[in-house]
Amino acid sequence: MRLRLDLGYDGTDFHGWARQPELRTVQATLEDALSLVLRTNSADVTCAGRTDAGVHARGQVVHVDVREQDVVAAAGRGTSPRLEALLRRLNGVLPDDVRLHRCREMPLTFDARFSALWRRYAYRIADDPEAVDPLARRHVLAWPRRLDLDAMNQAATGLLGEHDFAAFCKQREGATTTRTMLELRWTRDASGLTVATVRADAFCHNMVRALVGCLLAIGEGRRPPGWAGELLLLRARDSAVTVVPPHGLTLEEVGYPPDAALAERARVTRATRTPLLEQRGVGSE
Amino acid sequence: MRLRLDLGYDGTDFHGWARQPELRTVQATLEDALSLVLRTNSADVTCAGRTDAGVHARGQVVHVDVREQDVVAAAGRGTSPRLEALLRRLNGVLPDDVRLHRCREMPLTFDARFSALWRRYAYRIADDPEAVDPLARRHVLAWPRRLDLDAMNQAATGLLGEHDFAAFCKQREGATTTRTMLELRWTRDASGLTVATVRADAFCHNMVRALVGCLLAIGEGRRPPGWAGELLLLRARDSAVTVVPPHGLTLEEVGYPPDAALAERARVTRATRTPLLEQRGVGSE
Repeated sequence: MRLRLDLGYDGTDFHGWARQPELRTVQATLEDALSLVLRTNSADVTCAGRTDAGVHARGQVVHVDVREQDVVAAAGRGTSPRLEALLRRLNGVLPDDVRLHRCREMPLTFDARFSALWRRYAYRIADDPEAVDPLARRHVLAWPRRLDLDAMNQAATGLLGEHDFAAFCKQREGATTTRTMLELRWTRDASGLTVATVRADAFCHNMVRALVGCLLAIGEGRRPPGWAGELLLLRARDSAVTVVPPHGLTLEEVGYPPDAALAERARVTRATRTPLLEQRGVGSE
Repeated sequence: MRLRLDLGYDGTDFHGWARQPELRTVQATLEDALSLVLRTNSADVTCAGRTDAGVHARGQVVHVDVREQDVVAAAGRGTSPRLEALLRRLNGVLPDDVRLHRCREMPLTFDARFSALWRRYAYRIADDPEAVDPLARRHVLAWPRRLDLDAMNQAATGLLGEHDFAAFCKQREGATTTRTMLELRWTRDASGLTVATVRADAFCHNMVRALVGCLLAIGEGRRPPGWAGELLLLRARDSAVTVVPPHGLTLEEVGYPPDAALAERARVTRATRTPLLEQRGVGSE
């Protein structure tokens, strides 16, 4: 049976999502918990957004294929539904910087990565001493100067739609850097934080952090609002773009189509985003 | 000159507010930063709410008397107003789990502790797996069972107004435990967290955490809503009341009267709340 797990994590003490030898990663932590609770050696999870070291998640989604008899055995003899019991057992084993929010059975056509319609990230900045909250310091960037949100939003508008975002991506051989930006806007929230909402069909490696770095330069007045569009036209990485620190970035939500459309969506995504070489890292940040 | 400083801190790695030999406390950390930046040995700060070990603050207020020439020297020759420059220098010296939000000159009649009209605390609980956010785990209590907010609010209503809160206080010889509860209510916020807003003229030691512990027992159905009122009538500490962990508690705001009424407010507070013995710890939690 295929399970969909929704989870959040504090990325501070992880070397990112992807399993790496000898390092503490979210994928390894989650797979180890699944192996322990399900008494199996083959828990391979696939995630929607492969977050970098230091990046957080509130709405990460993964799928994993498990044997029904293992779930039944793990759930035990309690009265609660077996997937609720499994969720509780997994949270009991996981460290407190990773929490599972939901556990559901899905059709085999569901693929956490390839079925996704979009990923939504938030980048949070405290650009005012009054808005710097020590309780939020692990997921909010403290910035010493006030930012001009109007200029940043003016620049952001020019990045909406389908573009080759090579200027903001670490290039990978054979992988396309064309993405569709669905939402990119800056708001000031009730606590005075400056928040970027960034939503696209998928992201290349480092793309959100490079976009935020570009817009920060505009918000400080170091560059004019037109600079973002000029960079886009370069279609190649520009060293003038600073990649901002990872800790301000959080994967907030992943959007999927209705169940009936899952298979078709996965087919289309696979075809457009893995034309030549390996599939690793697509949709990552 | 008398300065009012507004600050926030993550209480996780502090042994509470009050200076103690050999321990890391917020008071000592702040006084050391003031001494360093103002090049003085006599920075004695007085706070509005003496938070316990592990308790946080977003809206703590302190006052400190400093020499004007020390402020001028510390501010340096920049173009920004001297108190803004002082704020920046202090934040540059303080560790990142303490942040100063504002620094203002006040009349000498202002006393951070005795001029305060009320203190407002929040206690945050995630009583639903979907609401447990690893990024907030240091200031939100994770609770394994869903709470009945209606029952908790019914019980809370009976605690409003002036009462002897001895049932919820660590008793101190000679100190009154009569307080005026101005606000005590439970709400579920947009992210699904259960939040208690607790506002009173002042609090005895452990009072908020004992009140929350009492109301939690009611919210779980282990006690009827009438239990809170029954405890109040005992006028003595009851061992059936559990004091909840400190990390869910945050001092959010302190209210003061207009400047013209500061002196009168301090006179009244001093008279009612320090009748016999020492003044330490009044208004603390």
